Parts: sequence; C-alpha cells; structure tokens
Amino acid sequence: MLTNADRKIYRSLSVKKFRDEHRLFLVEGKRSVQEAISSDFEIKLILATAAFLKDPDGRSIIAGAKKRKTKTEEMSEREFSALADTVHAQGIAAIVETKRASFPGILARDRPGALLVALDAVADPGNVGTIIRTCDWFGVDGIILGEGCADLYNPKVVRGTMGSVFHLPVAEGVNLEKSLPLARDAGYRVLATDAASHDQLPADQRKSILMFGNEAHGISKVVRALCDRSIAIPRYGRAESLNVSIACGVLLAQLRSHA
Amino acid sequence: MLTNADRKIYRSLSVKKFRDEHRLFLVEGKRSVQEAISSDFEIKLILATAAFLKDPDGRSIIAGAKKRKTKTEEMSEREFSALADTVHAQGIAAIVETKRASFPGILARDRPGALLVALDAVADPGNVGTIIRTCDWFGVDGIILGEGCADLYNPKVVRGTMGSVFHLPVAEGVNLEKSLPLARDAGYRVLATDAASHDQLPADQRKSILMFGNEAHGISKVVRALCDRSIAIPRYGRAESLNVSIACGVLLAQLRSHA
Repeated sequence: MLTNADRKIYRSLSVKKFRDEHRLFLVEGKRSVQEAISSDFEIKLILATAAFLKDPDGRSIIAGAKKRKTKTEEMSEREFSALADTVHAQGIAAIVETKRASFPGILARDRPGALLVALDAVADPGNVGTIIRTCDWFGVDGIILGEGCADLYNPKVVRGTMGSVFHLPVAEGVNLEKSLPLARDAGYRVLATDAASHDQLPADQRKSILMFGNEAHGISKVVRALCDRSIAIPRYGRAESLNVSIACGVLLAQLRSHA
Repeated sequence: MLTNADRKIYRSLSVKKFRDEHRLFLVEGKRSVQEAISSDFEIKLILATAAFLKDPDGRSIIAGAKKRKTKTEEMSEREFSALADTVHAQGIAAIVETKRASFPGILARDRPGALLVALDAVADPGNVGTIIRTCDWFGVDGIILGEGCADLYNPKVVRGTMGSVFHLPVAEGVNLEKSLPLARDAGYRVLATDAASHDQLPADQRKSILMFGNEAHGISKVVRALCDRSIAIPRYGRAESLNVSIACGVLLAQLRSHA
C-alpha cells in the first residue's frame, strides 16, 4: 500500500529540486513505461488505474514488470490525475531512479567515427526531448546537456523523448567551457551550428561533437571560441531561422548519409 | 478607443469558431508582428502596452505600422495579459485578417520542380507551426493542411511558424481524397513518408508533394492509396519513430541537396 509520504514524494517529482533530492523521476504512458521496463534503469514502482489493469495492453505491461520483480500499485483515477503531468497519461506511470552519465564517461565509450551531440542552453523541454529522440534514431553515441538546458528528467523532456531517454547516455549540467578541451584531447572535433556560416558539414567520418545553441541567442561566445569550425544548413526560402531540433535532425541525417 | 465589443471579439480569437466567424486572428510578439506588417496581410489593429510603446524596438515597429496606415491602441498590462496566449508576449500583438489559399490556387502557381508539403491529420499545433517554418526555410511553394490538422490560425500554430505564416500559401481543411487526383493531373507525384518503407527519396527534380501523417497513426489508408510511392528515412539507432516535423526537415534538406 502507498503511504501518504510516498504519494507526497511522487507528486513532488514535477519539480527538479525534488527529483534531485529523491533521485527519482516520473515516466508516463504505455510506450514510455514499456521502454523503462526493457531498460537497465531501476524502477521503484509502477502506478496504474483499475481501468488500465483491465486493459489487455495493460496486463501485458504489468506482466513484463513482474518478470523483473517490479511492484505495481493501483491508484484511483482521481489520484492518478493529480500525479500525472499530461491529460492523456493512459492510466500508467512508473517511478524510476535517475541515472546520470558523465561527460568523461561518454568520452571513454570511444569508437571510430563516434558522434556526440552537445546542447548549450537549449531551454525548451520540448526541444530537448525531441533532440534526444532524434539522436536515438540516428544512432548518436551520447548527448551532453550544458548548463542552462531544460532538465533531462523534466516530465515534458521525458515525454518528448518517447522512450529514447532509456536508450542512450545523457550527461547533464555539463560546464562546456571546462569540458570541451577534454573532448578535443580525446580526438573529437567540435562543430558549431551557426546560421551565419557559409560552410557545410564536412563529408569525412572523423569523431565529432555537433553543438547546438539556445533558441533565441544561439551558442554562447565562450563556447563558440572552443569549437573547431562553424557550419550551417543552406536556406532556400525566407524563414529567419530553423528550430534547433529540426537543425539537429537535418545535420544528423546528412552526417549519416556521408557514411 | 477600444469598445467592450471589440475587446470581447479579440479575446474570443483563441477559439477557432470565432476566428472563422470574424475572419481574424491574433499575432503575438515583436518578430511575428513585424512580419505581419511587412506582409500583404490586412492588419486591423495593433495592440501594445505602454511599456512596449516606450521601448526603442517598439517605437520602430509602431512607425512601420503607421506607414501602412495601421492604427495602434494602447492597452493596460492587465488587459493585455488577458488577451495574449503566451506568458511572454512582449506587450505587442496584432489583430490580422485571415487569408486562405485554396489547393487549386496553389497548384496553379506552377513552376518546374515545384515542391509542396501536405499534412494528413497532423494534430499537434506545435508540429504544424514548426513544419510551416521549416517549409519556409527550404523554399517550399505551398502547404496543404488536410482535414484533422491543427487549425492554421490557432495561436500556438501561428507562434510556432515564427512569422512564416505570412510567407507562403497554406490551404486549410482540404479533403485530400478528393484533391490529390487534381495534383496528379497537374503533373505532381505524391510521396508518402512511411517508416516501414525501404525506399529513399528519389534524386530527381520532378514536381512533388511530400505527404506526412498523424503523429500516432501515420497517413490514413485512403490517402496512402492515392500516393505514388512510399519513402523512409534510414534509421541508425533504436528510436521507434521520428517526430513528424523532424522527418519533414530531413526530407526537405535532402530534396534540396539533390538540386
């Protein structure tokens, strides 16, 4: 049975401070919970409504959880809505232990042609979530969230990743100014995306970090000074800029097609 | 001076029914209002807070509006917040007359290698807005919103376009089943995006319509049956799918790089 103290903790997980304190985050919806179950993340508990537990999809998810000895607690619809961040949470959520990759740890997982994506103060949770999902599609080896980025375990980020948060290592709160020299020592070149550049993506297969900047201000001066070169996506129309997650998708697709 | 009836109309514009009834929509924020002023859309009125009117950027926007004989009304901060959909609306908004391109009209603006994007029930306003912005970047000739798409003049769509709503023709509420045969008669081939396909984008420059489907269900069967071929974006990692606006960006970039 859930105690009131438990409930209070679970509800507090919409706030970063409490996620950090309890080292837990909330995962909502069928697909994401299923991805959590198939991952090596530690799941503390699954929460489900009676309606979800009766549903055939629901039963199969709960059976999967039992196999890895994860407990499920039933919750009333009302209690569930108070917990969930989304309107359509499908009556299923998981309380999962946070996991933090470090930047040196990501660099250590070295392989020829390794590809990392780094974000400098990308503030919109929807963008960060979509970028993680896109990186997962294109087989990126790891993601570095610099300071000022939306929090990895923000419910909107987690939802936007569509389960990809469980697929690839993400380092958070990284001081890019201090860390980028480590990457260059490890043989990475750092490519800054910059709408004002006239250069396009190089067609070789060198180990690279693709760097994207804040939605309004781009990459900060300090970080840009540490990048090896600037690249841009050619424009054919009149829009002033591309959304940062679109730019990320376009460049990753281009890099992969060079292989 | 604004009458109470005016205020009531402007506030009602967050609802599609009233946008359709009054043939007006609300544009918020500096950049978007500036784009409206530089466009051939009819602006009924600009609304601004006292703080905005004192700001140098503000004064230059209002001067631009005066040149095209558009009136500006001052609003209190409080009244402005009640009107605006966003938290950070920057104290500036415009009431603009809606403009609707027709599908036959878009087909008539024919040119060799013309490129159109069609959406089948893309429901998320953020996606529709980002797709319009992305199409504008890549110089797409026109956009067709099929039934079930988020409304073009939904404030979230307008905001997501970052001003691109003023740059290219968008036909709304199009019955794709009835309309696609017209496009084929006009010499267009219709390319359906489909994660299950093994084909990639053809490298020629034929007139094309790129079709994207609903976030959860993809392109409907009826519409797919009217498409010439299915294409996919190769996957290198583990994500189950790409966000629809990312897929649109990747394919447009690829099409343009073939040129």
